Amino acid sequence: MNALDQLISQLSRLPGIGKKSATRIAYFLLRADSNYSRNLSELLAGVRERIHPCSVCGNYTEVDPCDVCADPQRDRATICVVEQPQDVAVLEATREYRGLYHVLMGVISPIEGIGPKDLTISRLVSRVKDGGVTELILATNPTVEGDTTALYLVKLFESSEVRTSRLALGLPVGGDLEYADRLTIARSLRGRTPLSS
Amino acid sequence: MNALDQLISQLSRLPGIGKKSATRIAYFLLRADSNYSRNLSELLAGVRERIHPCSVCGNYTEVDPCDVCADPQRDRATICVVEQPQDVAVLEATREYRGLYHVLMGVISPIEGIGPKDLTISRLVSRVKDGGVTELILATNPTVEGDTTALYLVKLFESSEVRTSRLALGLPVGGDLEYADRLTIARSLRGRTPLSS
Repeated sequence: MNALDQLISQLSRLPGIGKKSATRIAYFLLRADSNYSRNLSELLAGVRERIHPCSVCGNYTEVDPCDVCADPQRDRATICVVEQPQDVAVLEATREYRGLYHVLMGVISPIEGIGPKDLTISRLVSRVKDGGVTELILATNPTVEGDTTALYLVKLFESSEVRTSRLALGLPVGGDLEYADRLTIARSLRGRTPLSS
Repeated sequence: MNALDQLISQLSRLPGIGKKSATRIAYFLLRADSNYSRNLSELLAGVRERIHPCSVCGNYTEVDPCDVCADPQRDRATICVVEQPQDVAVLEATREYRGLYHVLMGVISPIEGIGPKDLTISRLVSRVKDGGVTELILATNPTVEGDTTALYLVKLFESSEVRTSRLALGLPVGGDLEYADRLTIARSLRGRTPLSS
């Protein structure tokens, strides 16, 4: 296998990249500015040394604790619990949330053999025990695994002072009733919000 | 900008990779086996030193001349003229063609300011002049630019002994008349092939 075929084969292991996209990217790299591929190569080599999970919340960061955990402006009484580091970036992009985060690094999934011990749940328990936390927003995905994990956490913190909540389910903004699935429509009906004039 | 944001920003410059795919890939790389990202980084750094255009046909290769040009089994009387190196790979995958190739490294495109001099046409002329070539298969894409380039080559070789041909236009195999565009159907009618029983 020559270097080009090797590159195509390795690129096609990336998520969402099939053989055709990998081929297209490889040929693009051969024709692109050589600074670009060198730069990309160095970033790839360096990113894992420079980026680590925050020792407090588990989000990926270059400094420890991360910018969110270190920010004195953030509301320390609320922790938003998410599955993956990328969920933090997604929530931050909304500029709607001013609390802290906790990254579970996965979800409870009996099929894949992932139990509560494989997640960062014990660290979440310590954070709550340290005091000052009044609400956990359980922002795991609205999937079977995400719901299971949220339910597990609800039970875990039942006897504590901390409130738990879950992200609202319903129609996406700009969505179309016609194209929404039955379950989503059912949840949007159940969770309907009163209008005041 | 931290290393992760830099990686996302560089990845989103790749063809077919938007901000969302780039983010997904970057987070994947952070969690993937560290050998994988190191290997990919090395391949990226090395591929441009190891892969070069073949001095005969212009196809990307590690050895010069490339495997196709060096193969004594190939039919040296036929040259298939393509736009890009990746077109060689696509044609080779069919295992239908046993001649040689010539990569133009682009197409004539007045809008983008690309003229015949920007392509490897003079090298094609030398190859034909060296003798032994009886047919040029003009396999540029069936687009305005591809057709223009093919027409330019037809005129260029009009006075020479070499025959020129173009890839057949028509319905894709397994395609559906209902979903084919008007131009393709028109070309498939004009190029209809007689059936012998």
